[in-house]
Amino acid sequence: MAQDKVFIFDTTLRDGEQVPGCKLNTEEKIKLALELETLGVDIIEAGFPVSSPGDFASVNEISKVIKNATVTGLTRAVQKDIEVAAEALKPAVRPRIHTGIGSSDNHIKYKFNTTRENIIERAIAAVKLARNLVPDVEFYAEDAGRADLQFLAQLTEAVIKAGATVVNVPDTTGFCLPHQYQEKMQYLINNVSNIDKAILSCHCHNDLGLATANSIAGAIGGARQIECTINGIGERAGNTSLEEVAMIIKKHPELGLYTNIDTTRLLPMSRLVSDTMRMVVQPNKAVVGDNAFSHSSGIHQDGFLKEATTYEIIAPEEVGADTSKIVLTARSGRSALAYRFKNLGYEFDRNQVDELYQQFLNVADAKKEVQDSDLKEMAEKVSS
Amino acid sequence: MAQDKVFIFDTTLRDGEQVPGCKLNTEEKIKLALELETLGVDIIEAGFPVSSPGDFASVNEISKVIKNATVTGLTRAVQKDIEVAAEALKPAVRPRIHTGIGSSDNHIKYKFNTTRENIIERAIAAVKLARNLVPDVEFYAEDAGRADLQFLAQLTEAVIKAGATVVNVPDTTGFCLPHQYQEKMQYLINNVSNIDKAILSCHCHNDLGLATANSIAGAIGGARQIECTINGIGERAGNTSLEEVAMIIKKHPELGLYTNIDTTRLLPMSRLVSDTMRMVVQPNKAVVGDNAFSHSSGIHQDGFLKEATTYEIIAPEEVGADTSKIVLTARSGRSALAYRFKNLGYEFDRNQVDELYQQFLNVADAKKEVQDSDLKEMAEKVSS
Repeated sequence: MAQDKVFIFDTTLRDGEQVPGCKLNTEEKIKLALELETLGVDIIEAGFPVSSPGDFASVNEISKVIKNATVTGLTRAVQKDIEVAAEALKPAVRPRIHTGIGSSDNHIKYKFNTTRENIIERAIAAVKLARNLVPDVEFYAEDAGRADLQFLAQLTEAVIKAGATVVNVPDTTGFCLPHQYQEKMQYLINNVSNIDKAILSCHCHNDLGLATANSIAGAIGGARQIECTINGIGERAGNTSLEEVAMIIKKHPELGLYTNIDTTRLLPMSRLVSDTMRMVVQPNKAVVGDNAFSHSSGIHQDGFLKEATTYEIIAPEEVGADTSKIVLTARSGRSALAYRFKNLGYEFDRNQVDELYQQFLNVADAKKEVQDSDLKEMAEKVSS
Repeated sequence: MAQDKVFIFDTTLRDGEQVPGCKLNTEEKIKLALELETLGVDIIEAGFPVSSPGDFASVNEISKVIKNATVTGLTRAVQKDIEVAAEALKPAVRPRIHTGIGSSDNHIKYKFNTTRENIIERAIAAVKLARNLVPDVEFYAEDAGRADLQFLAQLTEAVIKAGATVVNVPDTTGFCLPHQYQEKMQYLINNVSNIDKAILSCHCHNDLGLATANSIAGAIGGARQIECTINGIGERAGNTSLEEVAMIIKKHPELGLYTNIDTTRLLPMSRLVSDTMRMVVQPNKAVVGDNAFSHSSGIHQDGFLKEATTYEIIAPEEVGADTSKIVLTARSGRSALAYRFKNLGYEFDRNQVDELYQQFLNVADAKKEVQDSDLKEMAEKVSS
């Protein structure tokens, strides 16, 4: 099967960084940008240069140190934004300006108080200006998730004609279902005459918990760039999680897609972002949560100890995690208990394990988790 | 459009409770069960009765107090498990036994070391025994996500014939993509001759971040029960999030589905489970995360202040949250700043706001979040 590359566009430093409490200083942003480049990210969105002097400085400094990845900065479809972004991106080896405007009737009416025709004019002007300043211009059709599909196709055609190299189709409010987002991409591929001159990009929000599924559906529909963040941070319920997208594409070769991400760096990267931005990752977070490789029920532990693949589709080392964990609780069974005793240096016959298991359950019903020290105490009584 | 009910099967107290550190005592379990019933859950999985004396007691006590919801307990396809579960469920108004066995070749070979034929025999025997003890029996075909589809259909037909009222098709390892899980449900609907005598159920795990999307895809494919937990807790990366499923079905009436969930109780329920089980919910968790209704970038704040629906598809009160938040950071714009000054009792003209905005950015670049006290200090200087 032919393998198509999906470009990974990381916006941890822009959409992620705008989250309450996540603000970074320039030094922290540079450190994360370098780590993102090593992770294999293709495009780093470094900030929104016009928004504040601090953000301008960050985009500018990141542009100086990144050598392989494309560096981009966000702008509105406003002359000053675009000029300031170009200025900030000047030192970049591969600069990209990311500009755009609302495309849904909701945004056109309530946010811009204007007409569809005027939106197209402003979009064309913004893209042309940006293309005069840098060779790589991405256009975002904000709130495309709720936009009229025919208008979206018209807008897409116009901005590609004006020079956009990437067209981002954001589900800004996180409203779409996966099959709906996929159909939007397919519609654009089939109805925009110059679509071969640009790449379509997925930018999904997680308000209904569907950002990852929508991004993958978008790629199935023909998009070849996915915008995402480490740990899925971002406005409101966040963005698509980079780590989930990377692992889905890796684990499902039948999609015919690949990314440049070194998945063995995912867990360290997740920890670094969580620590630097002070944004906790819940234990049950896919791929990088603390419990992602923990097995606690007796049924699962028994299967896992016989053969890991019974309950594990990702080996911990694939994402840079240490090892799978067997946690002893009241839901654990005899096989996990015997296994742990063996690891502690005790060998018991079946009758002894049966007896110990009853003691174990009493301890486990009273405590959340049974520790090695509890087990040793039990074992010593049997051995003596 | 005809509206079909999707039954919500909550397994917070079973699959959720087996998570490391989440163990509950009987009193805590009863409290949560009563809240789940008030939330509108149709089926409460109260525990795994044979696993420990404590869990038996919890299922037994919950069976006594729950009056409207069905109460169920998990078992393996093992005589003792089923008999103990029936005993624990004796006081229930609507008892259900949830029994099952592995259905993928991986599980059949590595976990059971047996043949497909033997699995069908054991499944039939378990369902028949359970149906002799209670009138409502759900069968789970463990690891159905990786099972041979033709075999899965054969197994489904056999257990329905033996008396199963619900057939659960778990994606135990969280491996499926949404369209694949949907196709499995459609295949069973089209290829199991007695499928009209049972309900198909989705039980999805979140290892690739797709549990919610897969459950919705399963319902589109014909399933009419979704198994889920509050906050998506559960083994490894967890289960489908109840709150996400409920809001997707509510926000997408074109699916032709509804649930019995009172969505205004979702946020209080999420907090109660998080506090009782000591499992943190990350701020960017969909629907119930702390930031789910926070707007922080200038572009978003400007749109939101003009018209909330520009960036919000769920009103906070729909899920029991207080109000949307406008957080002032270096990414905020003039309109959010002016709005906050007005709330604090200051009215400034455009030039004054421009001047204050520069001061504001300096403060914001230095701090994570600008507080009302900072603003008052700035305002007093202008006013005086």
